[in-house]
Amino acid sequence: MRLPVLRTIPSHRSRPHDAEAREKCGVFGVWAHQSPARLAYSALVALQHRGQESAGIVATDGRVLERRAEMGLVSNAVPPPDLDTLDTHANSRPSIPGGAIGHNRYSTTGASASNNAQPFLGHFKGGQVAIGHNGNLVNARELRDELERAGHGFHTSSDTEAILQLLAHYSSDDGSQDPLASALARLRGAFSLVFLFSDRLEAARDPWGWRPLVVGRLPDGSPVVTSETVALDVIGAEFVREVEPGEIVTLSDDGVSSRRFADASAPLAHCIFEHVYFASPATRLFGQTVQMVRERFGERLAQEAPVENADLVIPMPDSGRSAATGFARASATPYREAIIPNRYVGRTFIKPTKEERATAVRLKLNIISELVEGQTCVVVDDSVVRGTTTRAKMDQLRAAGAREIHLRISCPPIRHPCFFGIDFAERTQLVAHERSVEEIRSLLGVDSLAYLSLDGMLDCVAMPSLGRENYCAACFSGTYPIEVPNGLSKESLTSC
Amino acid sequence: MRLPVLRTIPSHRSRPHDAEAREKCGVFGVWAHQSPARLAYSALVALQHRGQESAGIVATDGRVLERRAEMGLVSNAVPPPDLDTLDTHANSRPSIPGGAIGHNRYSTTGASASNNAQPFLGHFKGGQVAIGHNGNLVNARELRDELERAGHGFHTSSDTEAILQLLAHYSSDDGSQDPLASALARLRGAFSLVFLFSDRLEAARDPWGWRPLVVGRLPDGSPVVTSETVALDVIGAEFVREVEPGEIVTLSDDGVSSRRFADASAPLAHCIFEHVYFASPATRLFGQTVQMVRERFGERLAQEAPVENADLVIPMPDSGRSAATGFARASATPYREAIIPNRYVGRTFIKPTKEERATAVRLKLNIISELVEGQTCVVVDDSVVRGTTTRAKMDQLRAAGAREIHLRISCPPIRHPCFFGIDFAERTQLVAHERSVEEIRSLLGVDSLAYLSLDGMLDCVAMPSLGRENYCAACFSGTYPIEVPNGLSKESLTSC
Amino acid sequence: MRLPVLRTIPSHRSRPHDAEAREKCGVFGVWAHQSPARLAYSALVALQHRGQESAGIVATDGRVLERRAEMGLVSNAVPPPDLDTLDTHANSRPSIPGGAIGHNRYSTTGASASNNAQPFLGHFKGGQVAIGHNGNLVNARELRDELERAGHGFHTSSDTEAILQLLAHYSSDDGSQDPLASALARLRGAFSLVFLFSDRLEAARDPWGWRPLVVGRLPDGSPVVTSETVALDVIGAEFVREVEPGEIVTLSDDGVSSRRFADASAPLAHCIFEHVYFASPATRLFGQTVQMVRERFGERLAQEAPVENADLVIPMPDSGRSAATGFARASATPYREAIIPNRYVGRTFIKPTKEERATAVRLKLNIISELVEGQTCVVVDDSVVRGTTTRAKMDQLRAAGAREIHLRISCPPIRHPCFFGIDFAERTQLVAHERSVEEIRSLLGVDSLAYLSLDGMLDCVAMPSLGRENYCAACFSGTYPIEVPNGLSKESLTSC
Amino acid sequence: MRLPVLRTIPSHRSRPHDAEAREKCGVFGVWAHQSPARLAYSALVALQHRGQESAGIVATDGRVLERRAEMGLVSNAVPPPDLDTLDTHANSRPSIPGGAIGHNRYSTTGASASNNAQPFLGHFKGGQVAIGHNGNLVNARELRDELERAGHGFHTSSDTEAILQLLAHYSSDDGSQDPLASALARLRGAFSLVFLFSDRLEAARDPWGWRPLVVGRLPDGSPVVTSETVALDVIGAEFVREVEPGEIVTLSDDGVSSRRFADASAPLAHCIFEHVYFASPATRLFGQTVQMVRERFGERLAQEAPVENADLVIPMPDSGRSAATGFARASATPYREAIIPNRYVGRTFIKPTKEERATAVRLKLNIISELVEGQTCVVVDDSVVRGTTTRAKMDQLRAAGAREIHLRISCPPIRHPCFFGIDFAERTQLVAHERSVEEIRSLLGVDSLAYLSLDGMLDCVAMPSLGRENYCAACFSGTYPIEVPNGLSKESLTSC
Repeated sequence: MRLPVLRTIPSHRSRPHDAEAREKCGVFGVWAHQSPARLAYSALVALQHRGQESAGIVATDGRVLERRAEMGLVSNAVPPPDLDTLDTHANSRPSIPGGAIGHNRYSTTGASASNNAQPFLGHFKGGQVAIGHNGNLVNARELRDELERAGHGFHTSSDTEAILQLLAHYSSDDGSQDPLASALARLRGAFSLVFLFSDRLEAARDPWGWRPLVVGRLPDGSPVVTSETVALDVIGAEFVREVEPGEIVTLSDDGVSSRRFADASAPLAHCIFEHVYFASPATRLFGQTVQMVRERFGERLAQEAPVENADLVIPMPDSGRSAATGFARASATPYREAIIPNRYVGRTFIKPTKEERATAVRLKLNIISELVEGQTCVVVDDSVVRGTTTRAKMDQLRAAGAREIHLRISCPPIRHPCFFGIDFAERTQLVAHERSVEEIRSLLGVDSLAYLSLDGMLDCVAMPSLGRENYCAACFSGTYPIEVPNGLSKESLTSC
Repeated sequence: MRLPVLRTIPSHRSRPHDAEAREKCGVFGVWAHQSPARLAYSALVALQHRGQESAGIVATDGRVLERRAEMGLVSNAVPPPDLDTLDTHANSRPSIPGGAIGHNRYSTTGASASNNAQPFLGHFKGGQVAIGHNGNLVNARELRDELERAGHGFHTSSDTEAILQLLAHYSSDDGSQDPLASALARLRGAFSLVFLFSDRLEAARDPWGWRPLVVGRLPDGSPVVTSETVALDVIGAEFVREVEPGEIVTLSDDGVSSRRFADASAPLAHCIFEHVYFASPATRLFGQTVQMVRERFGERLAQEAPVENADLVIPMPDSGRSAATGFARASATPYREAIIPNRYVGRTFIKPTKEERATAVRLKLNIISELVEGQTCVVVDDSVVRGTTTRAKMDQLRAAGAREIHLRISCPPIRHPCFFGIDFAERTQLVAHERSVEEIRSLLGVDSLAYLSLDGMLDCVAMPSLGRENYCAACFSGTYPIEVPNGLSKESLTSC
Repeated sequence: MRLPVLRTIPSHRSRPHDAEAREKCGVFGVWAHQSPARLAYSALVALQHRGQESAGIVATDGRVLERRAEMGLVSNAVPPPDLDTLDTHANSRPSIPGGAIGHNRYSTTGASASNNAQPFLGHFKGGQVAIGHNGNLVNARELRDELERAGHGFHTSSDTEAILQLLAHYSSDDGSQDPLASALARLRGAFSLVFLFSDRLEAARDPWGWRPLVVGRLPDGSPVVTSETVALDVIGAEFVREVEPGEIVTLSDDGVSSRRFADASAPLAHCIFEHVYFASPATRLFGQTVQMVRERFGERLAQEAPVENADLVIPMPDSGRSAATGFARASATPYREAIIPNRYVGRTFIKPTKEERATAVRLKLNIISELVEGQTCVVVDDSVVRGTTTRAKMDQLRAAGAREIHLRISCPPIRHPCFFGIDFAERTQLVAHERSVEEIRSLLGVDSLAYLSLDGMLDCVAMPSLGRENYCAACFSGTYPIEVPNGLSKESLTSC
Repeated sequence: MRLPVLRTIPSHRSRPHDAEAREKCGVFGVWAHQSPARLAYSALVALQHRGQESAGIVATDGRVLERRAEMGLVSNAVPPPDLDTLDTHANSRPSIPGGAIGHNRYSTTGASASNNAQPFLGHFKGGQVAIGHNGNLVNARELRDELERAGHGFHTSSDTEAILQLLAHYSSDDGSQDPLASALARLRGAFSLVFLFSDRLEAARDPWGWRPLVVGRLPDGSPVVTSETVALDVIGAEFVREVEPGEIVTLSDDGVSSRRFADASAPLAHCIFEHVYFASPATRLFGQTVQMVRERFGERLAQEAPVENADLVIPMPDSGRSAATGFARASATPYREAIIPNRYVGRTFIKPTKEERATAVRLKLNIISELVEGQTCVVVDDSVVRGTTTRAKMDQLRAAGAREIHLRISCPPIRHPCFFGIDFAERTQLVAHERSVEEIRSLLGVDSLAYLSLDGMLDCVAMPSLGRENYCAACFSGTYPIEVPNGLSKESLTSC
């Protein structure tokens, strides 16, 4: 095997249009099922919280891939007639049904966004392939530069096309014995990937285990892979096991098999933010149910930062409820829903007047004055993003008559960029950026403010089988499990 | 005054296309404001829970009406450029700003639905008028027949056009001194109405007070009228008083004035279902905050139908939370969010397979197994509609390991049609229809089932100033405050 | 019969939103046909040149009307599934098929345009009615004022709603024996109307015969009515006769019958502009084929205004072809297509630069230089609207090398407003307005310019059975066949 | 230079989804212009007849490419706000304006069509590139196979992506001195290409000169390239010269330069069907104006196949007019427009009844009976596609009373597939397929039928400087200028 052209040389050319897409998505795959597309549809609806920008499904009948993908929620992107087309296709071989993969993509911006809907379709020496990707590569730019120097062209700016070209490259007449493993071994960063070839499905997870990826089994025995267990529950599949970090799991007419593309020596780096915010409360993640973990965050927070003589604990709907019930229970304080969200608030006025800005805030939430008037209130939320919105909510509470407001946040302050798939892009003006907790408290206008400590958080997720060192908490701590290229770091948004 | 043509004669002609639209809507009006349309927009978003089918706003500059209305949520129906057009129009008189009314319409079906978006625009001898209507008339058909015999034609099938023709009729050269009062005196049923004329706004409420309608005042003194106080909170207006049953309130350049179109002798018939389900928890309705009333329903239910040795109280999200916190507090049982809703579930499969039907149910909710496994669970909801969905949810709970399930519903069984603006049309197959509570329990597959008693419910809403006899609870009791025409009754859906 | 309330009193109130819609539309009706909606669809496509703003079809099964109407061409407004719904409906009575009417509406502007799609649906003492209207009333405002003083309200600003209210008025318990005839007798102006009642179709034409309306018969005997014979040709129906001015023709299960609503004393006023521009060249109109008349215009123009030593006659595509072939033949000059239209030019740049304005003109037409270089060219068109566009075309010709340009227009200069259904609204800056022909020639930059004389035009259309005095040529002559209300006249656009 | 991986080996793998797109499109490019996108927009509207499926424009400021492309006509695909964005972008370098290319794509079918809108955007070692392609490669499949074996992956099925990967390949670290020339030298078939790089525009034409491509100059000196001279006329540019077969013309800040990628030894193969049908009548193509050539076709046809005692020559609108005027003039027969097209006929009924099929044909055309009744008619058209439509038209003529019908077609029968960019795909059931002219005459039901002879046609286009052997007339003759791969030929549609 000789592939001299693929040598890494640092690049200094500017590539202003190659936006680094930070993708936080959901993936699914199934093999040997009569209605793989309809099954994928249900799974993608269950995973919709992981991405709402676009969705797509690709099905194979064992010979040819058929794709449907569009902008919007999966219900818009792959409507029932398309599902029927895909499922009819998947059953066009006599007696042997085929398979399908599906993908939800997170909301990003940009005019060419529609071209980026996944799964990504390609053709190479090995035939057709469709790729669904959850995660973010830190060496995508290096790989693209290297491939271009070797004579490859690119049609999109996605990481996924780099993966396709790598796969194609290692499949050349002079290529590798296991092109997929060779290609995956070149990737650095977070990735949970599903590949649909005409005759098989391959699922792979990065050696650090950043993003979740699990194997399940339907009652009829058909194997499935997906991002979160909540999708297994919804389609009636049982949880079998996680795809191991560094592992490739293959689903085909020959059943399920496994191989490794990286040894198991890499230290684990499970993303703790999945527990904090990203995963469904009903998902069993890295061995624990998310809702239970979030309640524990609330209990721990009640111990770390109790409020004397509190009259009631108020959850910030809907994000604060899990931690708030934990906090209320641990502190033996009444839990009251004093803040009512308006489910119909969408886009706000384009250029609101000053008066309308106040109205816009009030539209999102209404306060039950009778519950807060003259009371010492504990408000629990899962995070604080910008000062402005939270400040406005606190002002509303105060205006409704609250005597004291004690804000409790069930994670530490977010102060560092994530390069592994969580987009804090919109958090450029994070309230915690270069501010102490006291400064934040003053800015929010509350009587006291406390965040859950990093130590406390890690205590809540540590288990005998999975120590606290096995989580990536870089967004809180700034300590990154792997080296991040300088260029990437410099482009980033916040550091402190 | 001589109007011999308008005499009521029973009609027996069939009129298959004149669907009796049961409207449960939200209205708003403001006078003398610089941005009446933008203000109406905010109020309509706050009232969006009262109707999502269509929305509209009409503004006047004191001389001419300008209208925008479309299908969909108000954010779709009247986008920002339209708001600007309307507000610019409202300010075209030098120095004196005009006014506006707005309307949200409840979802109904039918091809011609778009023609029914409100406010309804008309022209008559008194000039232009726009009408926004919340409620339902029981004598609409009689009025239309009578008007047709007198030579009037109709372009739509709405109750509102009958109101326009009545107003036009009493405004003829041979008409009435107070055409609006004369027209309103002819209406029987539930109505909270806003009329925008070129030079004034008039708001009226039926003599029985079925639907809410309140007067407020903005900080700058501009008067407003609207369906619920939650809209006042959102736009920063203070609550002044309710529009009295049988009263017309006029907003104009001369300020606010009042007159009656009916004496105060009619017995009040406030709709108790507004407290149960329809109004916002944050609204102050008929003198009490809805959220507090709903918590009281839960507390009372805990007394009426306690559960021995319950391990936890689980709210059915989102409708059961208010009552569930009341129930949990009154019974000193832990409150746990063990049922997680999927916010992205929309339309389901057009023709689901049997397997998909189970999936569709699971898609709506996920159960946190660790919370319910082996536990005696109390599940609290505000109502049960059909057996099928609730049955499926209970099965999910059972499958997740719940040992005992005790279902508690915070209102009595709904067994009678409403003719005053609540559409139980989709409840034709109401689980309570011709079934005992024990039969329902068996059908739902729960260990025990209890509804809040009618007595208990009325105790919760009775006040010294407003006795239990002042509420309409006909949907529970079958006792109607006013006579309902035979024909209307026969067309109706459910009786027991 | 006593209808004192309907007395005409001049009105001086301003009604700024009641735009006088000048409608130049196409109508169609059929009775006792298995697929009346599909038949109406074909007829409306054949009549699409009479109106492109909106289209609609209403069908009856003999008992109930069903309507579909939308903005856009008929292919958009009533797509095949709607046709099927309408036709299924029309056949819901056993063994007796029903009927349908259809309508094409001309392009006008205005936000509420979609509400004005026809046929117009109404309900009155006589039951349901749908109305399709081609023409324009000169006393619409008076009728509306009169009806409002009698107590009627209006929901739209269309002439057609006034017709509905008149019909309803004369149908009251105190009404007329023949309400339709009584209502039609009140109308002044141009109207070709089709009314669909649940059990019959009635077609009526104004006493002056302004707009065409003909009766036809399908091979199976089903009777039809429509605006132009071209629609008969397309659906395979034979031409029976014109609906006479002042006549009502009734199509029902009892066959075809006729009555008059006005005696035959009114002088005829056939619109000559139908021959000039509006009708299809293939239509037989007022007794003559339009294409033959237009060729005759060209021949006569060649006699009235010959060009010495012309090298070629160039038609202005597509409008000038008919007259140009006549001109070329009469003058024995070669006919050459030297101007090529671009069929894809649609909307132009919103704010074109000066350079783009020239480009926009060149986009519409390309000149074949080899045909015009060094030649004496005669260019024939059917009309000149504004100077700008024609001037630009002439400049293009000149730039392509034409030695002499002689412009010939096959109608007289348009200098007066039409109140009877032709909208010269966009012709406010008509080039002929207050300009002599020599001034126009100079402005257009041509070597000579000649219009067809009014005398010559009337000679071309006069027949033994239909004298020149039976045409309305008011847009050329300013002599109106009936008195036009002052207010209307003052609102109008151009006078000279 | 060493590129052993790119060796051609025949492939036998099936690739069912790689449809061979036959593209007949229009291209445009400009450099150093203040509003290159608006200029491209005008040119694309002028070239819209070459493709209506999709359109796109890419602009550069000398550093970065910005793209807009969508389905539909250019007016839909690149609306004015997008033009402004592109032009603002093109002027972001101080004082030096950039350039743009544009592309119209012909209508094809297929679900993934939107991904195929051009210009095609790519990135390679040389930076960004956008490609607009008119033509069709006969070795596209071979090139893709070869590239895949060398390790390249593909994201689309277009020929254009193969061109991108070739360009990237020859740009590798081990690549060619002139990668573009090296890539173009590999292409076999018809291509007129525009490449926009960040800092220059390169236009290339295949060595056989199949499709047109010309260079022009704007009054301010900015150079342009485009498919047809009609686009030059529209934007006010003067014609400079054709891009020579085998030539690359470069437009950049350094002006216009030229080089060859193939020597001039290849025999020319100008597509004669551009003259017959595809190009605009106003275009100067391969040295002659299309309209003059078409008139000559008609004149020659009148000599080859005269009609004794013909009363009139009738053009089939709009395609037959050019030849019909030539025929009428040469035969001294009156030219009359007896067939009137309906400009509004679009889609027909989905499942037409038998009666509706006749109606659908009549909808397209109306006959002026007075012109044809009892006459000997010559009908001239540019081609006959299927028998059905023409047969129906002839029947209409006969039904209108024509005594004799003599059909004259201004090109020879089309009997062979085109592999060079003309899609006769919809002509699978070509009437001339395996039928003699007498059989076709009988099938069409006309009294006589004649086609222009191939000899006659070639006489009409031959010039001293460009002999008849320099045209490709393979669709008529079956003689292909270059070898066509077996596989391609077998896939094709018609042979005789």
